Amino acid sequence: MEGIHRIGVMTAGGDCPGLNAVIRAVAKTAMGSYGWEVMGIEDGFLGLIQNRMRLLNNEAVSNILTTGGTILGTNNRVAPRNYTVKLDGRVETRDVTDRCLEHIAHNHLDAIVVIGGDGSMSIASDFVRLGINCIGVPKTIDNDLYGTDVTFGFATAVSIATDALDRVHTTAASHHRVMVVEVMGRNAGWIALHAGTASGSDVILIPEIPFDIRIVSDFVMGRARHGKRFSIVCVSEGARYKGGKQVISRIDPSSPDPVRLGGIGEAVAADIEDATGIETRTIKLGHVQRGGSPVPADRVLATEFGSKAIDLLAEGERSRLVVVRAGVVTHIPLQDAEGKQRLVPIDHPLIRAARNVGTCFGD
Amino acid sequence: MEGIHRIGVMTAGGDCPGLNAVIRAVAKTAMGSYGWEVMGIEDGFLGLIQNRMRLLNNEAVSNILTTGGTILGTNNRVAPRNYTVKLDGRVETRDVTDRCLEHIAHNHLDAIVVIGGDGSMSIASDFVRLGINCIGVPKTIDNDLYGTDVTFGFATAVSIATDALDRVHTTAASHHRVMVVEVMGRNAGWIALHAGTASGSDVILIPEIPFDIRIVSDFVMGRARHGKRFSIVCVSEGARYKGGKQVISRIDPSSPDPVRLGGIGEAVAADIEDATGIETRTIKLGHVQRGGSPVPADRVLATEFGSKAIDLLAEGERSRLVVVRAGVVTHIPLQDAEGKQRLVPIDHPLIRAARNVGTCFGD
Amino acid sequence: MEGIHRIGVMTAGGDCPGLNAVIRAVAKTAMGSYGWEVMGIEDGFLGLIQNRMRLLNNEAVSNILTTGGTILGTNNRVAPRNYTVKLDGRVETRDVTDRCLEHIAHNHLDAIVVIGGDGSMSIASDFVRLGINCIGVPKTIDNDLYGTDVTFGFATAVSIATDALDRVHTTAASHHRVMVVEVMGRNAGWIALHAGTASGSDVILIPEIPFDIRIVSDFVMGRARHGKRFSIVCVSEGARYKGGKQVISRIDPSSPDPVRLGGIGEAVAADIEDATGIETRTIKLGHVQRGGSPVPADRVLATEFGSKAIDLLAEGERSRLVVVRAGVVTHIPLQDAEGKQRLVPIDHPLIRAARNVGTCFGD
Amino acid sequence: MEGIHRIGVMTAGGDCPGLNAVIRAVAKTAMGSYGWEVMGIEDGFLGLIQNRMRLLNNEAVSNILTTGGTILGTNNRVAPRNYTVKLDGRVETRDVTDRCLEHIAHNHLDAIVVIGGDGSMSIASDFVRLGINCIGVPKTIDNDLYGTDVTFGFATAVSIATDALDRVHTTAASHHRVMVVEVMGRNAGWIALHAGTASGSDVILIPEIPFDIRIVSDFVMGRARHGKRFSIVCVSEGARYKGGKQVISRIDPSSPDPVRLGGIGEAVAADIEDATGIETRTIKLGHVQRGGSPVPADRVLATEFGSKAIDLLAEGERSRLVVVRAGVVTHIPLQDAEGKQRLVPIDHPLIRAARNVGTCFGD
Repeated sequence: MEGIHRIGVMTAGGDCPGLNAVIRAVAKTAMGSYGWEVMGIEDGFLGLIQNRMRLLNNEAVSNILTTGGTILGTNNRVAPRNYTVKLDGRVETRDVTDRCLEHIAHNHLDAIVVIGGDGSMSIASDFVRLGINCIGVPKTIDNDLYGTDVTFGFATAVSIATDALDRVHTTAASHHRVMVVEVMGRNAGWIALHAGTASGSDVILIPEIPFDIRIVSDFVMGRARHGKRFSIVCVSEGARYKGGKQVISRIDPSSPDPVRLGGIGEAVAADIEDATGIETRTIKLGHVQRGGSPVPADRVLATEFGSKAIDLLAEGERSRLVVVRAGVVTHIPLQDAEGKQRLVPIDHPLIRAARNVGTCFGD
Repeated sequence: MEGIHRIGVMTAGGDCPGLNAVIRAVAKTAMGSYGWEVMGIEDGFLGLIQNRMRLLNNEAVSNILTTGGTILGTNNRVAPRNYTVKLDGRVETRDVTDRCLEHIAHNHLDAIVVIGGDGSMSIASDFVRLGINCIGVPKTIDNDLYGTDVTFGFATAVSIATDALDRVHTTAASHHRVMVVEVMGRNAGWIALHAGTASGSDVILIPEIPFDIRIVSDFVMGRARHGKRFSIVCVSEGARYKGGKQVISRIDPSSPDPVRLGGIGEAVAADIEDATGIETRTIKLGHVQRGGSPVPADRVLATEFGSKAIDLLAEGERSRLVVVRAGVVTHIPLQDAEGKQRLVPIDHPLIRAARNVGTCFGD
Repeated sequence: MEGIHRIGVMTAGGDCPGLNAVIRAVAKTAMGSYGWEVMGIEDGFLGLIQNRMRLLNNEAVSNILTTGGTILGTNNRVAPRNYTVKLDGRVETRDVTDRCLEHIAHNHLDAIVVIGGDGSMSIASDFVRLGINCIGVPKTIDNDLYGTDVTFGFATAVSIATDALDRVHTTAASHHRVMVVEVMGRNAGWIALHAGTASGSDVILIPEIPFDIRIVSDFVMGRARHGKRFSIVCVSEGARYKGGKQVISRIDPSSPDPVRLGGIGEAVAADIEDATGIETRTIKLGHVQRGGSPVPADRVLATEFGSKAIDLLAEGERSRLVVVRAGVVTHIPLQDAEGKQRLVPIDHPLIRAARNVGTCFGD
Repeated sequence: MEGIHRIGVMTAGGDCPGLNAVIRAVAKTAMGSYGWEVMGIEDGFLGLIQNRMRLLNNEAVSNILTTGGTILGTNNRVAPRNYTVKLDGRVETRDVTDRCLEHIAHNHLDAIVVIGGDGSMSIASDFVRLGINCIGVPKTIDNDLYGTDVTFGFATAVSIATDALDRVHTTAASHHRVMVVEVMGRNAGWIALHAGTASGSDVILIPEIPFDIRIVSDFVMGRARHGKRFSIVCVSEGARYKGGKQVISRIDPSSPDPVRLGGIGEAVAADIEDATGIETRTIKLGHVQRGGSPVPADRVLATEFGSKAIDLLAEGERSRLVVVRAGVVTHIPLQDAEGKQRLVPIDHPLIRAARNVGTCFGD
């Protein structure tokens, strides 16, 4: 703990409910339990590059526990090793890591808490190799960060997606329609799996289980034959057709004005309607899933993460990632999270449970 | 009330939170206060054409007050005068009004309560001219039915849209982005006006006020110059560019694979990003706005509407539309609602209030 | 409008969702549409007495539209004519109206916007008689202020109460219990009437209709005989036994340790359990109904009220109360609201609708 | 799996969000994955004693995933070994275990799934010793059942309590008051710890940490001295004064009409107001915490529990309790849960995190 008098904290990457709760816990723990000063670095690594940071006090982190977004701002496109600058109209890429180190030194930061995804952890690992003390706090709305069983923001995203699926359910039943709801999850199907199960979706399509659209359509038809003239399909944005059908180039041939479909949800909806003749509509939830007040579970987890990050620094740790393992908040080496993802195992117990209650995965 | 022993009730047109609350109030009032029997006609006018109806008892309408959708099913494409049938592969359009009258007589329905929009009220008016007793209950999620100041379902739609706008707000602020949220409202901007005001949206675009995209972009830039590097734009699906720019044919020229934009929200977002250079994202809320449990105000209004419809029949009325006027539930001639819409007056007090707090309408 | 360069705004009386939305609309309209300065007076009339006020700018009223409470603080026990001071241990009551006028003059306030209930409007009327320009904005969670059909905060309170009643419903049904939920409403039963109707409560007890507890118990028993072994009772805190039974002195005789019951809800619950033998539980919602983010309808109404208050000043009005009449925001003389209350008329259409769907009012 | 053709399922003990989700998963898994019949036993063990059960089909368990309560009914006072009957006015207690066994045999139930708390698991263990196959599913809103890290319903209760604490927060701040909110938790403080942390409560009082009221009052005063003239206190219903002060007999001596306080919340509030002079109010949330639609996490967990219970039977298990251990759904011997409770360890990481962000536990 010797040597730490002042730390920096930043949020990097996409927005995620609970970021402010982490910032608050980091600042309150550092100030209240250890007497350290805390500098808030603005807009992720961009603020470090541009030397934009400000002192956080108790006032600054009051009343932010329950709010969405991040009071520090964030940025999901900047990396110090590949920083893009415009010079005389030309775009140039530079390594500005040195500039970051200077700003860290200049502001007397003895350590940095980086709240971010796997890209951010790679940058933090770079910094560690250059002598900077970094504690990582994992952030991913998709819940696919390697090393931790769960991250804050995920429960909120699932809650928002489930609420939308619940609402759509009644409309689908009234109109005897198929409703396809596309939720977040580019590489991992965690949100679709949880929200689909929580809402009793009839079909769940996730990236980890490429689907056969005929199986999906047959399932929908089978329900109709048994008097259930509606179905709810919950699909991850990263779900894939078996055999690799390219969604991106799909054109609706029946339209006088050809339409490129906007995503996997629209593609699946069009195919189901073609195959079954049942009216099918689609909704893409998009950014709504990232915003707003975190659900209580995410506030609690974010508070634990922020508190733990500072306790680790106080205990002398210099390069750890705070994680949840087997239901307990603990920590792993920072670099362990680099470049790996946590996908849904196809034999995951929740997939088995979902199948048991009759869910179709299109396989 | 002489002559009435049994009535029918149907829901027609698009789904709307509060339909079940009306059905419940109709059935409970008719059975409990007047001792009438109530037949539930399935899937709107389609059920009348196909003679699909069932007796409703107290059990059938229990526990439906708070649920979305309609227990009777609905249909928004069938009209008895233009009923489409397939015969030997050919599609043919017929007038099946007589068949409806037969089924009404055969089931001994002394009157029908039609819960629907202006198309449904036209059909009901036709029936009245043929001797059928009809009471209409206005239903429109967009709140644009002529004759009534407000309808059930609208408050719920505004609530869902506001919730989404609130969520998006935090993400926009964290990322310094413009967020464009497209809400329902094909001809009237009520939902955008209310949800935009309730969420403190910076820009509100409605069909009644064609917008100049340069004014919108300048407004967004002006905010950025004053340190507000994000803006929220709430746009009705029926909002229109001043001068009549065709959104439908818009193609993104910068894409190697030309993209037709999916709606007014995407068009506006693309134009704002082009003009300001600020990252801009769009969300189209879609059917989520129609589903799920109605908010308390809609449950109350729906209950009043259903109760009033039966009281009117009991008082001897035979062709009325239940409406709210000046804050009071009352009634007007059924045919008065035909073919007219209630748009937002451009000098509406809420528009003035919104301008007073700084909202830009693009004009 | 001549003469106005700077105004004050205060919130007085009990907390109410939407206060911040009014403050924001007042400040933004005054600053943005008319170029006036706005002083926020702290803690209602107490701040005026103690000369505690601060300049509000755009920053100060940003991000408060959706928040509960009031950024200015409030106080519901101070009146300038009867201000209580402690001097040398003695408590003394003084008229400090002059001190208020001095502080108004000293801060160059050309007018004051008072957001408060009927007590606050009486004080404001006093001020008007002494030459101060005052515009009142009606605030009452109970919705019982004379002169306006509705006030902001009411819809939120109804929403919170309805949510609790909905939750309690499932527990009551599972356990075959009677659940008595006491909601706000000391003199007027608006919240109980609306929340009770919205939740499908079986019994609604309001101050305006003194109830016969035997009728209530018989109703509950009648439901049990028809297989509905549970009932939900929604009771205003100000509901009264017919004949004037004193709830306050009620003691549970069966307890070894005599218990004074905590309110009308507990009294009603005890009597129902005694009479029917059905297990009966009670919940008193209390202050939860006053807090938190306002529902969209309240945010819209509060924005209209605040905007209108400033428009009225700009039009030269000097002593008006902003109100809603027949669905329209308008205004009446400030003193008209003094000392009168808006109770539920016993022939109100919503009472008729509630009776039509089978609700018992205990009469 | 040999021998199982028909099973029974019951819910016993207090209501808990997610019971219907378990019933649905049990029924769908048993019917769909294994072809078994499922009998729903009504009102917990009471239905077994009285031979009230009904065949569940797919229709019966449709649309119940998201609903609160239990479609089977429950009962939290009946135990077969001590069944109370009234004979000729006398109350008599009998062991009716034999009658239960007869009804199990008569209905050809090859196994029973008991969803209940530790009392119910004791009864189920008795049955196992008499040759009945029983799988237990743990149910406790307080989250204090031994053997499982978490149970369904807990997240929903925390969510409801947090929502109330959030609402109360704004009122407390506006009025400069102390607000004491009493939440569930008779023996264990899990709900208070989680909801208190999630809401940023200033003080959390739980049964596991007896509190010194002077420390609490001093903490509140300290906040007031630093400009925070309000505080939020979250207290478990089972929280205890250090030294064992008897709350039950507390009388307010200042009242002309002595008042026995209604619970620990009122006692704490009275003491804080006495000690600090700051206006203090209390709210007891009560049964609202048990009812209504489960949050998504509880629906998912309940689905996993129900599915697992049937999989265990299919695998030949005859006496297991489904549990979550280290984040994974697994199982332990049924009798292991008997008569033990899972309290909050006073060195629990969440307590440390809460202390780190400045929470006072009164010790």
